[in-house]
Amino acid sequence: MRNIKLIIEYDGKLFNGWQKQPGKLNIQGEIEQAIFKVTGEEVDLIGSGRTDAGVHALGQVANFKLKESTLSIDKMAMAINSQLKPTIRIKEATEVDERFHSRYNAKKKTYRYVINNSPIPSAIYRGMQYHFKAPLDVDKMNKAAKYLEGEHDFKSFKSSGTSSKTSVRTIYEAKVYREYHNNMDLVVIELTGNGFLYNMVRIISGTLLDVGCGKIDAKDVKEILDAKDRKRAGKTLPANGLFLVNVCYEGDTND
Amino acid sequence: MRNIKLIIEYDGKLFNGWQKQPGKLNIQGEIEQAIFKVTGEEVDLIGSGRTDAGVHALGQVANFKLKESTLSIDKMAMAINSQLKPTIRIKEATEVDERFHSRYNAKKKTYRYVINNSPIPSAIYRGMQYHFKAPLDVDKMNKAAKYLEGEHDFKSFKSSGTSSKTSVRTIYEAKVYREYHNNMDLVVIELTGNGFLYNMVRIISGTLLDVGCGKIDAKDVKEILDAKDRKRAGKTLPANGLFLVNVCYEGDTND
Repeated sequence: MRNIKLIIEYDGKLFNGWQKQPGKLNIQGEIEQAIFKVTGEEVDLIGSGRTDAGVHALGQVANFKLKESTLSIDKMAMAINSQLKPTIRIKEATEVDERFHSRYNAKKKTYRYVINNSPIPSAIYRGMQYHFKAPLDVDKMNKAAKYLEGEHDFKSFKSSGTSSKTSVRTIYEAKVYREYHNNMDLVVIELTGNGFLYNMVRIISGTLLDVGCGKIDAKDVKEILDAKDRKRAGKTLPANGLFLVNVCYEGDTND
Repeated sequence: MRNIKLIIEYDGKLFNGWQKQPGKLNIQGEIEQAIFKVTGEEVDLIGSGRTDAGVHALGQVANFKLKESTLSIDKMAMAINSQLKPTIRIKEATEVDERFHSRYNAKKKTYRYVINNSPIPSAIYRGMQYHFKAPLDVDKMNKAAKYLEGEHDFKSFKSSGTSSKTSVRTIYEAKVYREYHNNMDLVVIELTGNGFLYNMVRIISGTLLDVGCGKIDAKDVKEILDAKDRKRAGKTLPANGLFLVNVCYEGDTND
Protein backbone atom coordinates (compact mmCIF):
# COMPACT_ATOMS: atom_id res chain seq x y z
CA MET A 1 0.00 0.00 0.00
CA ARG A 2 1.48 3.32 -1.10
CA ASN A 3 0.35 6.66 0.33
CA ILE A 4 0.64 9.51 -2.21
CA LYS A 5 0.65 13.19 -1.31
CA LEU A 6 -0.34 15.71 -3.97
CA ILE A 7 0.15 19.47 -4.16
CA ILE A 8 -2.59 20.90 -6.35
CA GLU A 9 -3.39 24.19 -8.07
CA TYR A 10 -6.87 24.91 -9.39
CA ASP A 11 -8.89 27.70 -10.91
CA GLY A 12 -11.78 27.82 -8.46
CA LYS A 13 -14.12 29.93 -10.57
CA LEU A 14 -14.70 26.97 -12.89
CA PHE A 15 -15.75 24.47 -10.19
CA ASN A 16 -18.44 23.99 -7.56
CA GLY A 17 -15.81 23.69 -4.90
CA TRP A 18 -13.45 20.95 -3.77
CA GLN A 19 -15.95 18.42 -2.45
CA LYS A 20 -17.54 15.61 -4.43
CA GLN A 21 -21.20 16.27 -5.23
CA PRO A 22 -23.23 14.28 -7.73
CA GLY A 23 -23.92 16.16 -10.96
CA LYS A 24 -21.72 19.13 -10.07
CA LEU A 25 -18.24 19.76 -11.38
CA ASN A 26 -15.87 19.49 -8.42
CA ILE A 27 -12.14 19.19 -7.98
CA GLN A 28 -12.00 16.12 -5.73
CA GLY A 29 -14.11 14.07 -8.15
CA GLU A 30 -12.15 15.21 -11.21
CA ILE A 31 -8.85 14.16 -9.66
CA GLU A 32 -10.22 10.81 -8.42
CA GLN A 33 -11.38 10.05 -11.97
CA ALA A 34 -8.00 11.00 -13.41
CA ILE A 35 -6.25 8.74 -10.87
CA PHE A 36 -8.60 5.90 -11.85
CA LYS A 37 -7.72 6.39 -15.52
CA VAL A 38 -3.99 6.11 -14.93
CA THR A 39 -3.90 3.48 -12.14
CA GLY A 40 -7.17 1.56 -12.54
CA GLU A 41 -7.81 2.08 -8.83
CA GLU A 42 -10.81 3.74 -7.22
CA VAL A 43 -9.25 5.89 -4.54
CA ASP A 44 -10.52 8.16 -1.81
CA LEU A 45 -8.80 11.50 -2.24
CA ILE A 46 -8.51 13.21 1.14
CA GLY A 47 -8.10 16.99 0.92
CA SER A 48 -6.49 19.12 3.65
CA GLY A 49 -9.86 20.85 3.77
CA ARG A 50 -12.69 21.79 1.48
CA THR A 51 -12.65 24.96 -0.53
CA ASP A 52 -15.94 26.55 -1.56
CA ALA A 53 -17.20 27.15 -5.08
CA GLY A 54 -15.11 29.92 -6.64
CA VAL A 55 -12.18 29.69 -4.22
CA HIS A 56 -8.78 29.17 -5.88
CA ALA A 57 -5.89 27.03 -4.67
CA LEU A 58 -2.24 27.62 -5.41
CA GLY A 59 -1.17 24.82 -3.08
CA GLN A 60 -4.00 22.59 -1.87
CA VAL A 61 -2.73 19.30 -0.43
CA ALA A 62 -4.44 15.92 -0.69
CA ASN A 63 -3.48 12.27 -0.27
CA PHE A 64 -4.71 8.88 -1.45
CA LYS A 65 -3.69 5.24 -1.16
CA LEU A 66 -2.75 2.89 -3.96
CA LYS A 67 -3.08 -0.86 -3.45
CA GLU A 68 -1.55 -2.40 -6.54
CA SER A 69 -0.58 0.19 -9.14
CA THR A 70 3.11 0.17 -9.98
CA LEU A 71 3.05 3.61 -11.64
CA SER A 72 6.33 5.26 -10.72
CA ILE A 73 6.08 8.22 -8.34
CA ASP A 74 8.29 10.24 -10.69
CA LYS A 75 5.69 9.94 -13.44
CA MET A 76 2.63 10.26 -11.20
CA ALA A 77 2.02 14.03 -11.46
CA MET A 78 2.49 14.05 -15.22
CA ALA A 79 0.28 10.99 -15.69
CA ILE A 80 -2.59 12.40 -13.61
CA ASN A 81 -2.27 15.82 -15.29
CA SER A 82 -2.60 14.15 -18.69
CA GLN A 83 -6.13 13.10 -17.67
CA LEU A 84 -7.18 16.40 -16.08
CA LYS A 85 -8.61 19.61 -17.48
CA PRO A 86 -5.88 22.30 -17.64
CA THR A 87 -7.75 24.21 -14.90
CA ILE A 88 -6.48 21.66 -12.34
CA ARG A 89 -2.76 20.88 -12.14
CA ILE A 90 -0.92 18.45 -9.89
CA LYS A 91 2.23 20.40 -9.09
CA GLU A 92 3.93 17.66 -7.13
CA ALA A 93 3.35 14.02 -6.17
CA THR A 94 5.43 12.37 -3.45
CA GLU A 95 5.28 9.07 -1.63
CA VAL A 96 4.76 9.61 2.10
CA ASP A 97 4.50 7.57 5.28
CA GLU A 98 1.34 5.47 5.25
CA ARG A 99 0.08 7.25 8.37
CA PHE A 100 0.17 10.65 6.65
CA HIS A 101 -3.31 12.24 6.51
CA SER A 102 -3.59 15.56 4.68
CA ARG A 103 -6.34 16.88 6.95
CA TYR A 104 -5.41 15.54 10.40
CA ASN A 105 -1.70 16.23 10.03
CA ALA A 106 -1.96 19.76 8.59
CA LYS A 107 0.00 22.04 10.89
CA LYS A 108 -0.70 25.35 9.27
CA LYS A 109 -2.38 26.88 6.28
CA THR A 110 -1.94 30.20 4.53
CA TYR A 111 -4.80 31.95 2.78
CA ARG A 112 -4.65 35.13 0.76
CA TYR A 113 -7.57 37.42 -0.03
CA VAL A 114 -6.85 39.72 -2.99
CA ILE A 115 -8.64 43.06 -3.35
CA ASN A 116 -8.13 45.15 -6.49
CA ASN A 117 -8.26 48.68 -5.11
CA SER A 118 -7.90 50.40 -8.51
CA PRO A 119 -10.69 52.66 -9.79
CA ILE A 120 -11.71 50.22 -12.56
CA PRO A 121 -11.95 46.41 -12.31
CA SER A 122 -9.38 44.38 -14.24
CA ALA A 123 -10.32 42.89 -17.63
CA ILE A 124 -7.65 40.21 -17.41
CA TYR A 125 -7.65 39.22 -13.73
CA ARG A 126 -11.36 39.77 -13.04
CA GLY A 127 -12.05 36.26 -11.69
CA MET A 128 -9.03 36.25 -9.40
CA GLN A 129 -9.74 39.20 -7.16
CA TYR A 130 -12.47 41.28 -5.55
CA HIS A 131 -12.81 44.79 -6.91
CA PHE A 132 -13.31 47.61 -4.41
CA LYS A 133 -12.68 51.11 -5.70
CA ALA A 134 -12.96 53.37 -2.64
CA PRO A 135 -9.51 54.16 -1.18
CA LEU A 136 -8.37 51.77 1.56
CA ASP A 137 -6.16 52.65 4.52
CA VAL A 138 -3.87 49.63 4.49
CA ASP A 139 -1.94 50.66 7.62
CA LYS A 140 -5.16 50.63 9.63
CA MET A 141 -6.18 47.30 8.12
CA ASN A 142 -2.82 45.81 9.04
CA LYS A 143 -3.08 47.19 12.57
CA ALA A 144 -6.55 45.69 12.91
CA ALA A 145 -5.32 42.34 11.60
CA LYS A 146 -2.81 42.13 14.44
CA TYR A 147 -5.68 41.79 16.99
CA LEU A 148 -6.48 38.47 15.33
CA GLU A 149 -3.06 36.95 15.90
CA GLY A 150 -2.84 34.32 18.64
CA GLU A 151 -5.29 31.74 19.96
CA HIS A 152 -8.86 33.04 20.03
CA ASP A 153 -12.45 31.90 19.79
CA PHE A 154 -13.26 33.07 16.25
CA LYS A 155 -17.03 32.56 16.60
CA SER A 156 -17.68 36.10 15.30
CA PHE A 157 -15.95 35.17 12.04
CA LYS A 158 -17.73 31.90 11.35
CA SER A 159 -20.75 31.34 9.11
CA SER A 160 -23.66 29.86 11.04
CA GLY A 161 -25.00 26.43 10.18
CA THR A 162 -21.63 24.73 10.51
CA SER A 163 -20.89 22.28 13.27
CA SER A 164 -17.21 22.48 14.12
CA LYS A 165 -16.62 21.12 17.61
CA THR A 166 -14.89 24.30 18.66
CA SER A 167 -14.39 27.71 17.11
CA VAL A 168 -11.04 28.21 18.82
CA ARG A 169 -8.21 28.57 16.32
CA THR A 170 -4.71 30.03 16.33
CA ILE A 171 -3.64 32.63 13.80
CA TYR A 172 0.17 32.74 13.65
CA GLU A 173 0.34 35.71 11.35
CA ALA A 174 -2.19 38.17 9.98
CA LYS A 175 -1.00 40.94 7.68
CA VAL A 176 -2.33 43.33 5.10
CA TYR A 177 -0.13 44.91 2.45
CA ARG A 178 -0.27 46.81 -0.81
CA GLU A 179 1.19 45.36 -3.95
CA TYR A 180 1.41 47.19 -7.28
CA HIS A 181 1.29 44.46 -9.89
CA ASN A 182 0.34 44.42 -13.58
CA ASN A 183 -0.79 48.06 -13.34
CA MET A 184 -3.19 47.19 -10.50
CA ASP A 185 -3.24 48.61 -7.02
CA LEU A 186 -3.81 45.45 -4.98
CA VAL A 187 -4.51 45.10 -1.27
CA VAL A 188 -3.66 41.64 -0.01
CA ILE A 189 -4.89 40.13 3.26
CA GLU A 190 -2.75 37.17 4.26
CA LEU A 191 -3.56 34.85 7.14
CA THR A 192 -1.55 31.90 8.41
CA GLY A 193 -3.16 29.72 11.06
CA ASN A 194 -3.54 26.19 12.37
CA GLY A 195 -6.96 25.99 10.77
CA PHE A 196 -9.86 28.13 9.63
CA LEU A 197 -13.60 27.95 10.28
CA TYR A 198 -16.21 27.97 7.53
CA ASN A 199 -15.96 31.30 5.63
CA MET A 200 -13.58 32.63 8.30
CA VAL A 201 -11.07 34.21 5.91
CA ARG A 202 -13.80 35.82 3.82
CA ILE A 203 -15.57 37.24 6.92
CA ILE A 204 -12.29 38.51 8.39
CA SER A 205 -11.53 40.10 5.00
CA GLY A 206 -14.94 41.78 4.93
CA THR A 207 -14.34 43.12 8.45
CA LEU A 208 -10.86 44.41 7.58
CA LEU A 209 -12.36 46.06 4.51
CA ASP A 210 -14.73 47.93 6.84
CA VAL A 211 -11.64 49.15 8.71
CA GLY A 212 -9.89 50.12 5.49
CA CYS A 213 -12.69 52.31 4.21
CA GLY A 214 -13.25 53.94 7.63
CA LYS A 215 -16.59 52.33 8.47
CA ILE A 216 -15.11 51.00 11.73
CA ASP A 217 -11.89 51.58 13.69
CA ALA A 218 -8.97 49.18 13.86
CA LYS A 219 -9.58 48.60 17.56
CA ASP A 220 -13.22 47.65 16.90
CA VAL A 221 -11.89 44.39 15.49
CA LYS A 222 -10.79 43.44 19.01
CA GLU A 223 -14.32 44.07 20.30
CA ILE A 224 -15.87 42.12 17.42
CA LEU A 225 -13.57 39.20 18.21
CA ASP A 226 -14.48 39.34 21.93
CA ALA A 227 -18.22 39.56 21.20
CA LYS A 228 -18.28 36.03 19.71
CA ASP A 229 -21.21 37.11 17.58
CA ARG A 230 -21.28 36.73 13.78
CA LYS A 231 -23.66 39.69 13.49
CA ARG A 232 -20.95 42.07 14.75
CA ALA A 233 -18.46 41.24 11.99
CA GLY A 234 -18.42 42.48 8.39
CA LYS A 235 -19.87 40.78 5.37
CA THR A 236 -18.53 37.63 3.74
CA LEU A 237 -16.51 38.76 0.72
CA PRO A 238 -16.97 36.89 -2.60
CA ALA A 239 -15.16 33.60 -3.21
CA ASN A 240 -13.16 34.69 -6.27
CA GLY A 241 -10.76 36.84 -4.24
CA LEU A 242 -9.70 33.92 -2.03
CA PHE A 243 -6.63 31.72 -2.56
CA LEU A 244 -5.46 28.75 -0.50
CA VAL A 245 -1.73 29.43 -0.81
CA ASN A 246 -0.21 26.43 0.93
CA VAL A 247 -0.60 23.79 3.64
CA CYS A 248 2.33 22.89 5.89
CA TYR A 249 3.15 19.62 7.64
CA GLU A 250 5.71 18.48 10.19
CA GLY A 251 9.10 18.42 8.54
CA ASP A 252 8.23 20.74 5.64
CA THR A 253 11.21 22.87 4.74
CA ASN A 254 9.16 26.04 4.29
CA ASP A 255 7.70 25.44 7.74
CA MET B 1 -15.07 68.55 -31.79
CA ARG B 2 -13.68 66.78 -28.74
CA ASN B 3 -10.70 64.42 -28.90
CA ILE B 4 -10.88 61.65 -26.30
CA LYS B 5 -7.92 59.55 -25.18
CA LEU B 6 -8.60 56.14 -23.64
CA ILE B 7 -6.37 53.83 -21.61
CA ILE B 8 -7.59 50.29 -22.12
CA GLU B 9 -7.03 46.88 -20.55
CA TYR B 10 -8.12 43.71 -22.34
CA ASP B 11 -7.88 39.96 -22.04
CA GLY B 12 -6.32 39.13 -25.40
CA LYS B 13 -7.00 35.41 -25.33
CA LEU B 14 -10.70 36.06 -25.92
CA PHE B 15 -10.29 38.23 -29.06
CA ASN B 16 -8.89 37.99 -32.58
CA GLY B 17 -6.65 40.94 -31.90
CA TRP B 18 -7.11 44.69 -31.76
CA GLN B 19 -7.99 45.39 -35.38
CA LYS B 20 -11.48 45.47 -36.85
CA GLN B 21 -12.21 42.46 -39.05
CA PRO B 22 -15.67 41.53 -40.28
CA GLY B 23 -17.13 38.50 -38.51
CA LYS B 24 -14.30 38.22 -35.98
CA LEU B 25 -14.43 39.37 -32.40
CA ASN B 26 -11.96 42.24 -32.05
CA ILE B 27 -11.27 44.92 -29.49
CA GLN B 28 -11.39 48.00 -31.72
CA GLY B 29 -14.82 47.07 -33.06
CA GLU B 30 -16.22 46.23 -29.62
CA ILE B 31 -15.19 49.61 -28.23
CA GLU B 32 -16.47 51.53 -31.27
CA GLN B 33 -19.85 49.84 -30.82
CA ALA B 34 -19.91 50.69 -27.11
CA ILE B 35 -19.07 54.34 -27.90
CA PHE B 36 -21.90 54.39 -30.45
CA LYS B 37 -24.33 53.08 -27.83
CA VAL B 38 -23.51 55.79 -25.32
CA THR B 39 -22.94 58.76 -27.66
CA GLY B 40 -24.91 57.91 -30.80
CA GLU B 41 -21.79 58.70 -32.85
CA GLU B 42 -19.95 56.42 -35.25
CA VAL B 43 -16.33 57.04 -34.40
CA ASP B 44 -12.99 55.86 -35.73
CA LEU B 45 -11.04 54.51 -32.81
CA ILE B 46 -7.31 54.94 -33.44
CA GLY B 47 -5.12 52.57 -31.45
CA SER B 48 -1.46 53.26 -30.60
CA GLY B 49 -0.80 50.07 -32.54
CA ARG B 50 -2.40 46.74 -33.28
CA THR B 51 -2.02 43.80 -30.97
CA ASP B 52 -2.32 40.31 -32.39
CA ALA B 53 -4.87 37.66 -31.46
CA GLY B 54 -4.09 36.43 -27.96
CA VAL B 55 -1.93 39.40 -26.91
CA HIS B 56 -3.05 41.14 -23.70
CA ALA B 57 -3.00 44.85 -22.92
CA LEU B 58 -2.71 46.37 -19.48
CA GLY B 59 -2.46 49.88 -20.90
CA GLN B 60 -3.28 50.15 -24.61
CA VAL B 61 -3.98 53.75 -25.67
CA ALA B 62 -6.50 54.85 -28.30
CA ASN B 63 -8.27 58.07 -29.25
CA PHE B 64 -11.44 59.10 -31.08
CA LYS B 65 -13.30 62.30 -31.94
CA LEU B 66 -16.79 63.28 -30.85
CA LYS B 67 -18.73 65.81 -32.93
CA GLU B 68 -21.85 66.49 -30.91
CA SER B 69 -22.16 64.25 -27.86
CA THR B 70 -22.30 66.20 -24.60
CA LEU B 71 -21.49 63.15 -22.45
CA SER B 72 -19.28 64.43 -19.64
CA ILE B 73 -15.66 63.30 -19.73
CA ASP B 74 -15.94 62.31 -16.05
CA LYS B 75 -18.63 59.76 -16.91
CA MET B 76 -17.14 58.63 -20.20
CA ALA B 77 -15.12 55.60 -18.98
CA MET B 78 -17.98 54.30 -16.84
CA ALA B 79 -20.52 54.80 -19.62
CA ILE B 80 -18.45 52.97 -22.24
CA ASN B 81 -17.60 50.18 -19.78
CA SER B 82 -21.32 49.68 -19.12
CA GLN B 83 -21.69 48.64 -22.79
CA LEU B 84 -18.57 46.45 -22.98
CA LYS B 85 -17.89 42.84 -22.10
CA PRO B 86 -15.99 42.63 -18.77
CA THR B 87 -12.97 41.35 -20.72
CA ILE B 88 -12.36 44.89 -22.01
CA ARG B 89 -12.15 47.79 -19.53
CA ILE B 90 -11.62 51.47 -20.18
CA LYS B 91 -9.36 52.43 -17.28
CA GLU B 92 -9.26 56.13 -18.02
CA ALA B 93 -10.83 58.61 -20.45
CA THR B 94 -9.43 62.13 -20.79
CA GLU B 95 -10.04 65.02 -23.14
CA VAL B 96 -6.89 65.90 -25.07
CA ASP B 97 -5.71 68.43 -27.62
CA GLU B 98 -7.46 67.88 -30.93
CA ARG B 99 -4.14 67.22 -32.65
CA PHE B 100 -3.36 64.26 -30.35
CA HIS B 101 -3.00 61.02 -32.32
CA SER B 102 -2.43 57.85 -30.30
CA ARG B 103 -0.24 56.22 -32.96
CA TYR B 104 1.74 59.12 -34.43
CA ASN B 105 2.40 60.78 -31.07
CA ALA B 106 3.41 57.65 -29.13
CA LYS B 107 6.88 58.29 -27.73
CA LYS B 108 7.54 54.94 -26.14
CA LYS B 109 5.90 51.64 -25.39
CA THR B 110 6.64 48.96 -22.85
CA TYR B 111 5.94 45.31 -23.53
CA ARG B 112 6.35 42.41 -21.13
CA TYR B 113 6.73 38.76 -22.07
CA VAL B 114 5.93 36.43 -19.15
CA ILE B 115 7.44 32.94 -18.99
CA ASN B 116 6.33 30.55 -16.24
CA ASN B 117 9.55 28.66 -15.52
CA SER B 118 8.00 26.32 -12.93
CA PRO B 119 8.02 22.56 -13.55
CA ILE B 120 4.22 22.41 -14.05
CA PRO B 121 2.04 24.93 -15.95
CA SER B 122 -0.32 27.06 -13.90
CA ALA B 123 -3.99 26.08 -13.65
CA ILE B 124 -5.11 29.60 -12.80
CA TYR B 125 -2.85 31.80 -14.94
CA ARG B 126 -2.49 29.45 -17.91
CA GLY B 127 -3.70 31.95 -20.54
CA MET B 128 -1.49 34.77 -19.28
CA GLN B 129 1.96 33.28 -19.67
CA TYR B 130 4.08 30.86 -21.67
CA HIS B 131 5.14 27.73 -19.84
CA PHE B 132 8.73 26.57 -20.22
CA LYS B 133 9.96 24.07 -17.66
CA ALA B 134 13.68 23.66 -18.37
CA PRO B 135 15.79 25.86 -16.06
CA LEU B 136 16.62 29.30 -17.46
CA ASP B 137 19.77 31.30 -16.76
CA VAL B 138 18.24 34.72 -16.23
CA ASP B 139 21.58 36.50 -15.76
CA LYS B 140 22.65 35.39 -19.22
CA MET B 141 19.30 36.38 -20.71
CA ASN B 142 19.57 39.82 -19.15
CA LYS B 143 23.13 40.21 -20.42
CA ALA B 144 21.99 39.22 -23.92
CA ALA B 145 19.09 41.68 -23.73
CA LYS B 146 21.53 44.55 -23.22
CA TYR B 147 22.89 44.07 -26.78
CA LEU B 148 19.45 45.12 -28.02
CA GLU B 149 19.46 48.49 -26.27
CA GLY B 150 20.01 51.53 -28.48
CA GLU B 151 19.10 52.30 -32.08
CA HIS B 152 19.44 49.28 -34.36
CA ASP B 153 18.03 47.74 -37.50
CA PHE B 154 15.89 44.98 -35.98
CA LYS B 155 15.29 43.16 -39.26
CA SER B 156 16.37 39.84 -37.70
CA PHE B 157 13.52 40.17 -35.21
CA LYS B 158 10.72 41.00 -37.62
CA SER B 159 8.22 38.59 -39.15
CA SER B 160 8.36 38.60 -42.93
CA GLY B 161 5.41 39.72 -45.01
CA THR B 162 5.11 43.06 -43.27
CA SER B 163 5.85 46.31 -44.99
CA SER B 164 7.18 48.79 -42.45
CA LYS B 165 9.13 51.53 -44.22
CA THR B 166 12.15 50.89 -42.03
CA SER B 167 13.11 48.26 -39.50
CA VAL B 168 15.23 50.67 -37.48
CA ARG B 169 13.92 51.13 -33.95
CA THR B 170 15.32 52.29 -30.62
CA ILE B 171 15.09 50.15 -27.51
CA TYR B 172 15.59 52.37 -24.46
CA GLU B 173 15.64 49.52 -21.99
CA ALA B 174 15.72 45.74 -22.29
CA LYS B 175 15.80 43.64 -19.14
CA VAL B 176 15.06 40.14 -17.94
CA TYR B 177 14.28 39.33 -14.33
CA ARG B 178 12.89 36.60 -12.11
CA GLU B 179 9.76 37.16 -10.10
CA TYR B 180 8.33 34.68 -7.61
CA HIS B 181 4.62 35.35 -7.63
CA ASN B 182 1.60 33.25 -6.65
CA ASN B 183 3.86 30.22 -6.10
CA MET B 184 5.16 30.53 -9.66
CA ASP B 185 8.74 30.99 -10.75
CA LEU B 186 8.32 33.61 -13.47
CA VAL B 187 10.89 34.97 -15.90
CA VAL B 188 9.87 38.35 -17.27
CA ILE B 189 11.31 39.96 -20.40
CA GLU B 190 10.59 43.68 -20.45
CA LEU B 191 11.29 45.94 -23.40
CA THR B 192 10.77 49.68 -23.68
CA GLY B 193 11.25 51.27 -27.06
CA ASN B 194 10.08 53.93 -29.46
CA GLY B 195 8.21 51.32 -31.46
CA PHE B 196 8.21 47.63 -32.28
CA LEU B 197 8.05 45.73 -35.56
CA TYR B 198 5.58 42.97 -36.28
CA ASN B 199 6.17 40.09 -33.82
CA MET B 200 9.40 41.78 -32.68
CA VAL B 201 8.87 41.25 -28.94
CA ARG B 202 7.84 37.63 -29.40
CA ILE B 203 10.85 36.88 -31.63
CA ILE B 204 13.26 38.65 -29.24
CA SER B 205 11.71 36.63 -26.40
CA GLY B 206 12.20 33.38 -28.32
CA THR B 207 15.82 34.32 -28.95
CA LEU B 208 16.46 35.23 -25.31
CA LEU B 209 14.84 31.92 -24.32
CA ASP B 210 17.46 30.17 -26.48
CA VAL B 211 20.10 32.03 -24.47
CA GLY B 212 18.43 31.11 -21.16
CA CYS B 213 18.40 27.40 -21.84
CA GLY B 214 21.95 27.38 -23.18
CA LYS B 215 21.17 26.77 -26.86
CA ILE B 216 23.09 29.91 -27.81
CA ASP B 217 25.43 32.31 -25.98
CA ALA B 218 24.51 35.79 -24.80
CA LYS B 219 26.96 37.35 -27.27
CA ASP B 220 25.33 35.48 -30.17
CA VAL B 221 22.43 37.89 -29.84
CA LYS B 222 24.74 40.67 -31.03
CA GLU B 223 25.61 38.63 -34.10
CA ILE B 224 21.98 37.78 -34.78
CA LEU B 225 21.13 41.49 -34.58
CA ASP B 226 23.97 42.38 -36.98
CA ALA B 227 23.00 39.65 -39.45
CA LYS B 228 19.66 41.36 -40.25
CA ASP B 229 18.26 37.94 -41.09
CA ARG B 230 15.06 36.57 -39.54
CA LYS B 231 16.32 33.00 -39.97
CA ARG B 232 19.12 33.61 -37.49
CA ALA B 233 16.83 34.56 -34.59
CA GLY B 234 14.82 32.24 -32.35
CA LYS B 235 11.21 31.21 -32.76
CA THR B 236 8.21 33.49 -32.29
CA LEU B 237 6.84 32.70 -28.82
CA PRO B 238 3.06 32.29 -28.39
CA ALA B 239 0.84 35.37 -28.08
CA ASN B 240 -0.60 34.57 -24.63
CA GLY B 241 2.62 35.45 -22.81
CA LEU B 242 2.72 38.98 -24.23
CA PHE B 243 1.39 42.13 -22.52
CA LEU B 244 1.35 45.70 -23.83
CA VAL B 245 2.05 47.39 -20.50
CA ASN B 246 1.80 51.07 -21.39
CA VAL B 247 2.23 53.71 -24.06
CA CYS B 248 3.83 57.05 -23.21
CA TYR B 249 3.32 60.48 -24.76
CA GLU B 250 4.96 63.88 -24.45
CA GLY B 251 4.12 65.31 -21.05
CA ASP B 252 3.14 62.02 -19.40
CA THR B 253 4.14 62.02 -15.76
CA ASN B 254 5.39 58.43 -15.81
CA ASP B 255 7.55 59.35 -18.76
